[in-house]
Amino acid sequence: MTILRASLATLLTAVSLAHAQPADPLPSWNEGHAKARIVAFVRAVSEQGGKDFVPPAERIAVFDNDGTLWSEQPAYFQLLFALDRVKALAPKHPEWKEKQPFKAALEGDMKALAASGEKGLLTLVMATHAGTTPGEFRTIVREWLVTARHPRFKRPYTELVYQPMLELLGYLRANGFKTFIVSGGGIEFLRAWSEEAYGIPPEQVVGSSIKTKYVVKNGVPALVRQPAVNFIDDKEGKPVGILQHIGRRPIAAFGNSDGDFQMLEWVTAGPGPRFGLILHHDDAQREYAYDRKSHIGRLARGLDEGPRRGWTIVSMKKDWTQVYPKR
Amino acid sequence: MTILRASLATLLTAVSLAHAQPADPLPSWNEGHAKARIVAFVRAVSEQGGKDFVPPAERIAVFDNDGTLWSEQPAYFQLLFALDRVKALAPKHPEWKEKQPFKAALEGDMKALAASGEKGLLTLVMATHAGTTPGEFRTIVREWLVTARHPRFKRPYTELVYQPMLELLGYLRANGFKTFIVSGGGIEFLRAWSEEAYGIPPEQVVGSSIKTKYVVKNGVPALVRQPAVNFIDDKEGKPVGILQHIGRRPIAAFGNSDGDFQMLEWVTAGPGPRFGLILHHDDAQREYAYDRKSHIGRLARGLDEGPRRGWTIVSMKKDWTQVYPKR
Repeated sequence: MTILRASLATLLTAVSLAHAQPADPLPSWNEGHAKARIVAFVRAVSEQGGKDFVPPAERIAVFDNDGTLWSEQPAYFQLLFALDRVKALAPKHPEWKEKQPFKAALEGDMKALAASGEKGLLTLVMATHAGTTPGEFRTIVREWLVTARHPRFKRPYTELVYQPMLELLGYLRANGFKTFIVSGGGIEFLRAWSEEAYGIPPEQVVGSSIKTKYVVKNGVPALVRQPAVNFIDDKEGKPVGILQHIGRRPIAAFGNSDGDFQMLEWVTAGPGPRFGLILHHDDAQREYAYDRKSHIGRLARGLDEGPRRGWTIVSMKKDWTQVYPKR
Repeated sequence: MTILRASLATLLTAVSLAHAQPADPLPSWNEGHAKARIVAFVRAVSEQGGKDFVPPAERIAVFDNDGTLWSEQPAYFQLLFALDRVKALAPKHPEWKEKQPFKAALEGDMKALAASGEKGLLTLVMATHAGTTPGEFRTIVREWLVTARHPRFKRPYTELVYQPMLELLGYLRANGFKTFIVSGGGIEFLRAWSEEAYGIPPEQVVGSSIKTKYVVKNGVPALVRQPAVNFIDDKEGKPVGILQHIGRRPIAAFGNSDGDFQMLEWVTAGPGPRFGLILHHDDAQREYAYDRKSHIGRLARGLDEGPRRGWTIVSMKKDWTQVYPKR
């Protein structure tokens, strides 16, 4: 009886301690400057009656995807997807053997492809996916994600999302934030898996897009993807895409490359409390190390100007205890 | 003492009855076919375990605005706004006196203007608002809404929203729906007042738009509205706009004109439970009566094909006990 009572007391103490000290919402972030600034910002804007309080409706946070929420090396994963599609569709397109960027795609010439940039990627996507509906396209993407493996890590691409960023997304949402993806990548490519991977629904995804056309065939209406660029959601296109989709200036922006510069610039120039963060890839051992000279995810201006603009520069190597989710 | 006890018993009975019979969520809708179908649909999709249950994330409802959520006669209210802007800016543009659609605007020639349609309206908006930021533009719209009065009803335009539709928006949201506006009108015009009037935040507004450009002047970044059409969110553009912004097919669509036909067609052609509704303006006394021959909000195909497509046709005259909110 005495033992039982003691156990109960221990249990109650444990429960009460758990209440007094809630679990760390960011366990994969080392204690340090970056984590402290994130927590201070979130507390400041969500503290009712505080001088920096922001109403929940205005707590909008925008995240770049490639290199910010998941890896982007040795090439954008959507580019690797497009390459596989080019190979799958090549028998129907003999002319691709001599035509760029298809030639590079079929030959696996990654340098030529990387140099073609977001526009080159979109050219491949347009050519390989024109004629599909968004639903069909998402199915193709999901099927690819099940079978494809990253060349270095030998894991599915959706396992190469960053554990610390997943925690950050959850932490922001737990504090009343609405989280959006604002990516240079294709909007329908992202929507195929963003809800499952990040908890971000299709209506909170902003991205580059090709045109779609409404057609009615035998009485059945459908939207069909067209081989023409609609919008490039990169660099100065990011604030434009944010306005178009979200319609108000977010209070927090998270990126990793100079393609995110204008987004961070616009977001952090607004009135009231603002937060800008750049993830610096300096961890060749656990992920990749690249910045000023990289074809993919080039980061120079952000490193030069970010600190004096008050942006938080995160070192993957020093600030993260873990990069990818544990298997 | 006995009296007190009896009173208490009465009070408790009243409270318990109130719980047993919750207040009608659609008090401005007459009991009848339309209301019964709305309620049956909402119950079916939100009944956990029911055969027509739809997860909350997929409970997306889209609403046309002009003629569906607020009046659109004697002309689209945004057109009336644009006319006032043309007059205000005319001294700086002497060439407008001879140039359409500005000439018609300055002369108050409503027929010529109505005939110029959505594109004519956008031409006026482009010319009168190029150079402003979205924030500045919304301020101009809000200031106009405070002073402008409807020519017939002598009330501010934001008081000419439909009370039964406000109740419907609230009823859907109380049952887990996310409500979006999908309008041929200008997206920034709508965002200036949609949250206050309808409880629909900027990120849930889809509309026509002009291009915006990101510019940095003296270190201050801004988005500036350009005199060029970006997107026309009308007719076959509505499903395209829905895909772009929302990224999934809604399960319910509400409109009033043939400009909404493709939206209703696409929404109601999807699998599972679907709801399409057309508001028929047949109430010349309390509002307006118009359909097949109207320049504004023309409705012919919807009346002809709607019923056999399973769409609910609402008679403003018979189905609504009240049109506008009471003062």
